[in-house]
Amino acid sequence: MLIVMDKNATREQIDNTVRAIKAMKLTPVPVPGSQRTAIGIIGNTGPLDRASFLVLDGVKEAIPVSKPYKLVSREVKPENTIISVGNATIGDGNITVIAGPCAVESREQCLAIARAVKNAGATCFRGGAFKPRTSPYSFQGLGEKGLEILTAVRQETGLAIVTEAIDHSNLELVEDVADIIQIGARNMQNFSLLKRAGRSSKPILLKRGMSATVDELLMAAEYIMANGNHRIILCERGVRTFADHTRNTLDLSAVPAVKSVSHLPIIVDPSHAAGRRDQVIPLSRGSVAVGADGLLVEVHNDPQHALSDGPQSLYPEQFDELMKSVAAVAASTGAAG
Amino acid sequence: MLIVMDKNATREQIDNTVRAIKAMKLTPVPVPGSQRTAIGIIGNTGPLDRASFLVLDGVKEAIPVSKPYKLVSREVKPENTIISVGNATIGDGNITVIAGPCAVESREQCLAIARAVKNAGATCFRGGAFKPRTSPYSFQGLGEKGLEILTAVRQETGLAIVTEAIDHSNLELVEDVADIIQIGARNMQNFSLLKRAGRSSKPILLKRGMSATVDELLMAAEYIMANGNHRIILCERGVRTFADHTRNTLDLSAVPAVKSVSHLPIIVDPSHAAGRRDQVIPLSRGSVAVGADGLLVEVHNDPQHALSDGPQSLYPEQFDELMKSVAAVAASTGAAG
Amino acid sequence: MLIVMDKNATREQIDNTVRAIKAMKLTPVPVPGSQRTAIGIIGNTGPLDRASFLVLDGVKEAIPVSKPYKLVSREVKPENTIISVGNATIGDGNITVIAGPCAVESREQCLAIARAVKNAGATCFRGGAFKPRTSPYSFQGLGEKGLEILTAVRQETGLAIVTEAIDHSNLELVEDVADIIQIGARNMQNFSLLKRAGRSSKPILLKRGMSATVDELLMAAEYIMANGNHRIILCERGVRTFADHTRNTLDLSAVPAVKSVSHLPIIVDPSHAAGRRDQVIPLSRGSVAVGADGLLVEVHNDPQHALSDGPQSLYPEQFDELMKSVAAVAASTGAAG
Amino acid sequence: MLIVMDKNATREQIDNTVRAIKAMKLTPVPVPGSQRTAIGIIGNTGPLDRASFLVLDGVKEAIPVSKPYKLVSREVKPENTIISVGNATIGDGNITVIAGPCAVESREQCLAIARAVKNAGATCFRGGAFKPRTSPYSFQGLGEKGLEILTAVRQETGLAIVTEAIDHSNLELVEDVADIIQIGARNMQNFSLLKRAGRSSKPILLKRGMSATVDELLMAAEYIMANGNHRIILCERGVRTFADHTRNTLDLSAVPAVKSVSHLPIIVDPSHAAGRRDQVIPLSRGSVAVGADGLLVEVHNDPQHALSDGPQSLYPEQFDELMKSVAAVAASTGAAG
Repeated sequence: MLIVMDKNATREQIDNTVRAIKAMKLTPVPVPGSQRTAIGIIGNTGPLDRASFLVLDGVKEAIPVSKPYKLVSREVKPENTIISVGNATIGDGNITVIAGPCAVESREQCLAIARAVKNAGATCFRGGAFKPRTSPYSFQGLGEKGLEILTAVRQETGLAIVTEAIDHSNLELVEDVADIIQIGARNMQNFSLLKRAGRSSKPILLKRGMSATVDELLMAAEYIMANGNHRIILCERGVRTFADHTRNTLDLSAVPAVKSVSHLPIIVDPSHAAGRRDQVIPLSRGSVAVGADGLLVEVHNDPQHALSDGPQSLYPEQFDELMKSVAAVAASTGAAG
Repeated sequence: MLIVMDKNATREQIDNTVRAIKAMKLTPVPVPGSQRTAIGIIGNTGPLDRASFLVLDGVKEAIPVSKPYKLVSREVKPENTIISVGNATIGDGNITVIAGPCAVESREQCLAIARAVKNAGATCFRGGAFKPRTSPYSFQGLGEKGLEILTAVRQETGLAIVTEAIDHSNLELVEDVADIIQIGARNMQNFSLLKRAGRSSKPILLKRGMSATVDELLMAAEYIMANGNHRIILCERGVRTFADHTRNTLDLSAVPAVKSVSHLPIIVDPSHAAGRRDQVIPLSRGSVAVGADGLLVEVHNDPQHALSDGPQSLYPEQFDELMKSVAAVAASTGAAG
Repeated sequence: MLIVMDKNATREQIDNTVRAIKAMKLTPVPVPGSQRTAIGIIGNTGPLDRASFLVLDGVKEAIPVSKPYKLVSREVKPENTIISVGNATIGDGNITVIAGPCAVESREQCLAIARAVKNAGATCFRGGAFKPRTSPYSFQGLGEKGLEILTAVRQETGLAIVTEAIDHSNLELVEDVADIIQIGARNMQNFSLLKRAGRSSKPILLKRGMSATVDELLMAAEYIMANGNHRIILCERGVRTFADHTRNTLDLSAVPAVKSVSHLPIIVDPSHAAGRRDQVIPLSRGSVAVGADGLLVEVHNDPQHALSDGPQSLYPEQFDELMKSVAAVAASTGAAG
Repeated sequence: MLIVMDKNATREQIDNTVRAIKAMKLTPVPVPGSQRTAIGIIGNTGPLDRASFLVLDGVKEAIPVSKPYKLVSREVKPENTIISVGNATIGDGNITVIAGPCAVESREQCLAIARAVKNAGATCFRGGAFKPRTSPYSFQGLGEKGLEILTAVRQETGLAIVTEAIDHSNLELVEDVADIIQIGARNMQNFSLLKRAGRSSKPILLKRGMSATVDELLMAAEYIMANGNHRIILCERGVRTFADHTRNTLDLSAVPAVKSVSHLPIIVDPSHAAGRRDQVIPLSRGSVAVGADGLLVEVHNDPQHALSDGPQSLYPEQFDELMKSVAAVAASTGAAG
């Protein structure tokens, strides 16, 4: 059960409700939001009676929830969440494409790529300033210098900026610059970082962990929402399996699976899933065809010399082709839906 | 290296070639085909000199092959294989849809479903007469009685028949009735059955094993081709992973992966992958968008009482919707390709 | 529910029982055994009343079964199944070691290895005459010639022979020679072969499929038992995962998992799981420590020139060490158990 | 290549070496340690000449490294790393058992369990004060109050304390109390936390991620070592697969795989792997038999009412049995090794 308090509920009414729940031998989990407070109820062994909660002062709704997650659930909020940043709107039925290099390498590199992807129709620019790398000896990103470059990219192109935060201290820095803060696959269950992201004013792009179930992805989003930030974009990026023809196995069924139970938008990252350039366009087409709200695509003007993930980065002219191809699929979806 | 003998090569010329290969301390693997004989060469530790083979009498071509598979490879045959049965043509760029119930249950059931799927645009009918079931106590199919029903379906509707063979003795029976013989996922590495399928005059629909790599799928097809049957349709049907929101994880990247290295057509079975009805349409759209040559879809007129796999079977009206939706995506692919 | 008929039940009593079950709107699955007939009952939606069956003439027992498998279940047969062949006894608490080369290559090779493993304490000899190989161009075994060699090995050494059958026709041949017939991982769900194995008079060594759950392994064994052969030895040989430091991931927890629900013995094949020689001894020790009834180990007198699986084959002197090491662990288990 | 500077090398000598490496068009990665500085060299495309480095002032050794990890490698340090805390010594050939509840729940609970496990022979006590939980609504641990309880446990029992840190700020707190700081599976690639752990004065217990390869586990340890902390204990705790008879699939082959390439000790957590009590003793026996340096076992005095992971926690009397059983296997290993 999720108890939703009235927007104007007083502190006392909230406390009373918490006490009432405890008196029923249940555990209240207050979830303070920016607009109103919700109170999750856990510990019940059978169905609860809505009426016992609706009679309490200041209670607006009492919503039965059959899943372990509550706030991300469509049961609680049936309509799609739509997120707007810069010129991009995510979750309203159009296809939002976020494109750019794996890592910010230099001002020239970023501006060249940004202009190319903008011309092709992308509305957001991606590029890592802080890079989580498997080896301590690999290039770890330009750090704050990279954030300055991303600021310049936005100023010059108007593209919204998506970049990753990998801990509390750089989330602080990233928050000032990014339009959307990315939480990477390796941090999907870094609950401390999720809580901090929940207190951020910026939307969060949350990538599915390499061996996370869809329920775990939604629970990670629940951590963010339970801490007050309701603007979350989920991202399918492939899972680990025995299959060896791609780096990870892209699980496109996650898209309709998420959409059937959650109101949050979900996009797909075909580049990290495939790990090879020749799969990016077909997988992008497939992503849009299964209903994704957008794509996260790696593009590089000189993939051969990229500091990371060159083999999966598209050349700008391939990205042009991707945008045209994806638009055609998107149009067909509209026609058929 | 694959040595291709001339169509009119004599027995003696073939034997001489085999002897010549042995004399070079290599192992010849004669692959008798319906039209001509090919001879795979294995055991070489470095590249071989084509000229040493081309000088032999009766040798038409000597093709260097860098992959473990030879005959299925695009290196050996660059153009797509196209397979025609009944009114269906598979591999020529159109989308072939094979639809029907998991198991043949009765004449009435099959005819009702067959008429419905034909009206919606399917050109092939699927239905199992011999069912491989995890439990010895589950319904194992109607057997020969089921084959009679399938014959009636073809007579009344003109749909081409696709049905599974699970061992040597029922392959014999299935061969008489089916237009396409299915080898199921559990038999993908039943090499004895593959060899027998290679001696069949009917095209083979070969499903990917639940934990088979793409290379292993191609090697299984190589077994069939090496025994003389060159008409093979591959089928992606999901692989086993930890993910639990679908029964298997559909690996749509297998489609472009196969197409880049093999000339064989590949279709997708979204029904068995998902195991749940609500995913079948989005996954069908995704399959076509990544380049699949067709679909294998379960449709039932009364899924609630289906003897197997009811929860994943579409209602006929949903199948109508699938066909329209998929046609729209296919059209967009043509436009964009 | 499993109905066990009396040893002296008449044909008529069995038929009457079947009719009575049908009259209750349930589905009877007669399971004729060598000694007596059992009748599985399926299709019930709730618990059944034992009394309704015990009153029927010729019925000895009515056993409620909560699992999908019946005959393999410890609920049906609480005491361990013990299988004796030659000088080996499997399932009685001692450790049975089956050792030999992956493939039978020659009489000299086999005899040399057989003498070595016998001296070290093995009681069974393994060696494939019919080899299931991923590639049609790989060495497929010596076939009947290999079976002759195995016969010679038994004659000269007294070791019991374990060798694989891969289809109906070679099972016929293998049955004449082998003391134990192996069904390989790739054929674990070749239900037609399982049924045939169920009609064999020889014990069956059934290997777990590469992506089979423990329940599926037990259901495969149920196929064999339901067809009359109750002498089955299960074998854990590793499953497919993303992990890449071994060829497959040995799942030793399958051993206690099987033992808690089934009366069948289970052994472990560390050689195929690891795919690398240096892991075979530690994994053999681990297997015995978790409670395995035995081991299936590859040993070769000249691994460098083995026709298959050389890198995982032990040298005879390493096998000596394995036997000593394993005996020590086994002794400790006895002490602690 | 890893350049090891002399213990008395001056700042200037180190800088000169870095410059010399850059002049060769290579990338130096200085790795300051507590005793001496090492400099990893990356970016080479072929083997390097040791002599070019050994001639530089202050360079003690130049070690060619064929693996992506360097400091954790046995190539760099052939002898086993041995870690002593309290009365426990890990990595010297004996079996160290760390036991206790999943979560610290109360002083009474912890002291009761601690006394029981100490009596049975454990030398370390585990218990989480900060718990990473999939759901934001689950019990998240007692926090600082829990750390106070752990301090009391050490004072009263003398057991060394192992407890988890989940972010920078609680690592600070945990560091004051713990004898060994645990980094959990979900944080194995939280590189920011790894770096912080690398600057800690306490040994780190690093658990393998749920879908991490052995190489990735070693690279995570390399992050910690590269930041100065050389006292790391690795922990195998099961990986995610399709198998459903245990919560995770315990990969015991990781133990010999780690030992063959790294000098670090490795222990096994059978409780989290299995997720069910009845597997803990057999898997503990198996762990010791494959060569693990110790065990991490969940024990609870009242598993039925445990706030987390009750079903996998042993009763104290079962833990007694485990200790005896494991000691017997350990003795057998010594005898056989």
